[in-house]
Amino acid sequence: MSKQKRFLLDESELPRQWYNIQADMINKPLPLLNPATKEPLTADDLAHIFAAECAKQELDQEHAWIDIPEEVFDRYKYYRSTPLVRAYALEKALGTPAHIYFKNESVNPLGSHKINSALPQCYYCKQEGTTNVTTETGAGQWGAALSYAAKAFGLECAVYQVKISMQQKPYRSSIMRTFGATVEGSPSMSTRAGKDIITRDPLHPGSLGTAISEAVELATTTPNCKYTLGSVMSHVSLHQTVIGLEAEKQMEKAGEYPDTIIACFGGGSNFGGLAFPFMRHTILEGKKTEYIAAEPSSCPKLTKGKFEYDFGDEAGYTPLLPMYTLGHEFKPANIHAGGLRYHGAGTIVSQLLKDGYMRAVDIPQTESFAAGLLFAQTESIIPAPESCHAIAATIREAKKCIETGEEKVILFNLSGHGLIDMTAYDSYLNGDLTDPEFKG
Amino acid sequence: MSKQKRFLLDESELPRQWYNIQADMINKPLPLLNPATKEPLTADDLAHIFAAECAKQELDQEHAWIDIPEEVFDRYKYYRSTPLVRAYALEKALGTPAHIYFKNESVNPLGSHKINSALPQCYYCKQEGTTNVTTETGAGQWGAALSYAAKAFGLECAVYQVKISMQQKPYRSSIMRTFGATVEGSPSMSTRAGKDIITRDPLHPGSLGTAISEAVELATTTPNCKYTLGSVMSHVSLHQTVIGLEAEKQMEKAGEYPDTIIACFGGGSNFGGLAFPFMRHTILEGKKTEYIAAEPSSCPKLTKGKFEYDFGDEAGYTPLLPMYTLGHEFKPANIHAGGLRYHGAGTIVSQLLKDGYMRAVDIPQTESFAAGLLFAQTESIIPAPESCHAIAATIREAKKCIETGEEKVILFNLSGHGLIDMTAYDSYLNGDLTDPEFKG
Repeated sequence: MSKQKRFLLDESELPRQWYNIQADMINKPLPLLNPATKEPLTADDLAHIFAAECAKQELDQEHAWIDIPEEVFDRYKYYRSTPLVRAYALEKALGTPAHIYFKNESVNPLGSHKINSALPQCYYCKQEGTTNVTTETGAGQWGAALSYAAKAFGLECAVYQVKISMQQKPYRSSIMRTFGATVEGSPSMSTRAGKDIITRDPLHPGSLGTAISEAVELATTTPNCKYTLGSVMSHVSLHQTVIGLEAEKQMEKAGEYPDTIIACFGGGSNFGGLAFPFMRHTILEGKKTEYIAAEPSSCPKLTKGKFEYDFGDEAGYTPLLPMYTLGHEFKPANIHAGGLRYHGAGTIVSQLLKDGYMRAVDIPQTESFAAGLLFAQTESIIPAPESCHAIAATIREAKKCIETGEEKVILFNLSGHGLIDMTAYDSYLNGDLTDPEFKG
Repeated sequence: MSKQKRFLLDESELPRQWYNIQADMINKPLPLLNPATKEPLTADDLAHIFAAECAKQELDQEHAWIDIPEEVFDRYKYYRSTPLVRAYALEKALGTPAHIYFKNESVNPLGSHKINSALPQCYYCKQEGTTNVTTETGAGQWGAALSYAAKAFGLECAVYQVKISMQQKPYRSSIMRTFGATVEGSPSMSTRAGKDIITRDPLHPGSLGTAISEAVELATTTPNCKYTLGSVMSHVSLHQTVIGLEAEKQMEKAGEYPDTIIACFGGGSNFGGLAFPFMRHTILEGKKTEYIAAEPSSCPKLTKGKFEYDFGDEAGYTPLLPMYTLGHEFKPANIHAGGLRYHGAGTIVSQLLKDGYMRAVDIPQTESFAAGLLFAQTESIIPAPESCHAIAATIREAKKCIETGEEKVILFNLSGHGLIDMTAYDSYLNGDLTDPEFKG
């Protein structure tokens, strides 16, 4: 009998609660501040733009376990559990003694992990009487997920997509429209924030920062409209912990426990989603596991940013967040990993990095696509440009094991597939891809 | 506890054999004929262009069960079982008492069922010392699957893609190149067949018929090169029976048995793959199940074609096949369901249709996309334009149940996702899609 390749859970084994790492952290994340008064924000303050329940979860430092609402669980069942896969073919191609596993979130509806948080955010909005949701999106993974979730719970949806990503990946806006959403390229002329940015820089390619400004403006100036976010915020990472909670049970079925956990890093939600449930054992039981966030060399907030209070958006509409940041006016290079082009990191991850629980590596664009191509050709899935960073970091670790002979167990998150990103692979195959330098 | 949504199999429950319906058919398919001599072809004749093992399987009317080679099974484990899903949300949107299930082949590597046959075909080629494989592809689902399978077993791969489909879905050729294949639009100037077609009709949009001619020519004029086919042939349907064999076990877990089985129809492989294992019980035990093939109104070989001997390709290079056909020079309209633009049907399905075991319906293009959109918005997966035909046929049946009140159990095959086909959805959403008339 050949060795088992994929590990799945029955519906009866699926997690019924999310894990809130804030409750277990020794040093809690610093508070979000009102930029005018410099006072800590309350859940009521946050509820002006977010669903009230999300605002409450955002600041919850008490409850380690939060129930997944039945209606959200019913939608999770459309695609969860996702497979935990042993990457035998990749291991063989590398010649490594390491045991490489990946959590395959690429088979989710809309192709990425994003839907795990889009569903609860839309559910809470609906419950609270909201009729419209809005958001920003980079590569479009989050916008696509939100469009579907909004449709599932009967909400209208408006998405601001980073202009350069919209041009690079035209199919993503079609996907959003298929689910009934309206989509605008950011910076746009439809908001004051967008107009101001275009006035300053008519050729601005857009960034998550500009798109957030526009969506927040729409939410605060439209009745019955809430803002939603696909990463960065703590409640988003909370929802994503279904990934790690499933992976924990699946690793048990595989009879192993990860020595190293790796995910790519944009705002932190796919990293936190996989890592936090395992990190619980590190915090509470001293379990020795290494956690590695893989960010692009051209947008290295974790490896080259500063820990300080900064705005989450370009125009300065958001609260001040205590985080590793490159500055909210940082303009990221036009790399294909649109979801990693963000100047800051979530507050939880920033605190954990500061406290030495994890580390970060930065990956040049061409190294990421070389890794993605090898992964596709061995494991049969074309990874999203974002996920390629996690694969590249995994390959670095697996190659170290060749030297040391260690049979390390490495687990990484395949956060999404790259089928909508084929222009990026085309560029790579044609030798046109560059490694933009970080200009700090 | 809410009702179960998805049904999966453990690796230990996966089928280890394919089901060969030819062995159980009362009236066997008529023989393939040599067009020059009109003599029945032998396996040796077929082995000039196909792998010898595939040629043997093609004509096998004795063995109902054929072992899946261990190396192929190892690759099946990368993605099988695929989920059997109860479409609760679609049922609710339709207000039907019917129980709708679908087999989700869209989560396969490369996004469709095609890989189920690409893997064994490449495996057998490799075993027999072949170094190169070639094929035709329409929408590109088959070409993408073959490119991956060739890479997996260490073969070189050259694909002729229907020109109009290549233009409609540019990402698919990028996908093939990602797996190291070379891709040409057909008709091309690289073969005699292609040149002849272009000379007769310089604006020929291409068809599966033209692309087959070119690939067969390459295979027969290149040393150590075999031709592979993604549908039509009996050995391809044989490999696809993993779909129905899994579905049978999964329906058992769901505690139901299908009254109606539906799949879209191009050459017949996804239809046969799902239907044949169930049809076994109809043939051997008289089980009353209805089998419906859904074809496009503009290419209706099953509903409006003739049962006769015809070539499989435009140039007349293939054997003569006993099948329902619109004539090998039939030029299909440029509908977006590239995989259904083929003039003929497989010989097994043709015999079964003739003998009354199944029926066919033809679906206009706009009806197919309306069905696909409703499916996406309810069940969260954007279906391939081909699969939209199966969904439209399912919706017709489910609506009949509203009138009759019957709780019919309907099972259809979601043969692939439509993420690479978003230009088609764009056209539909913009109101630009037409229903080309069949000109017989």
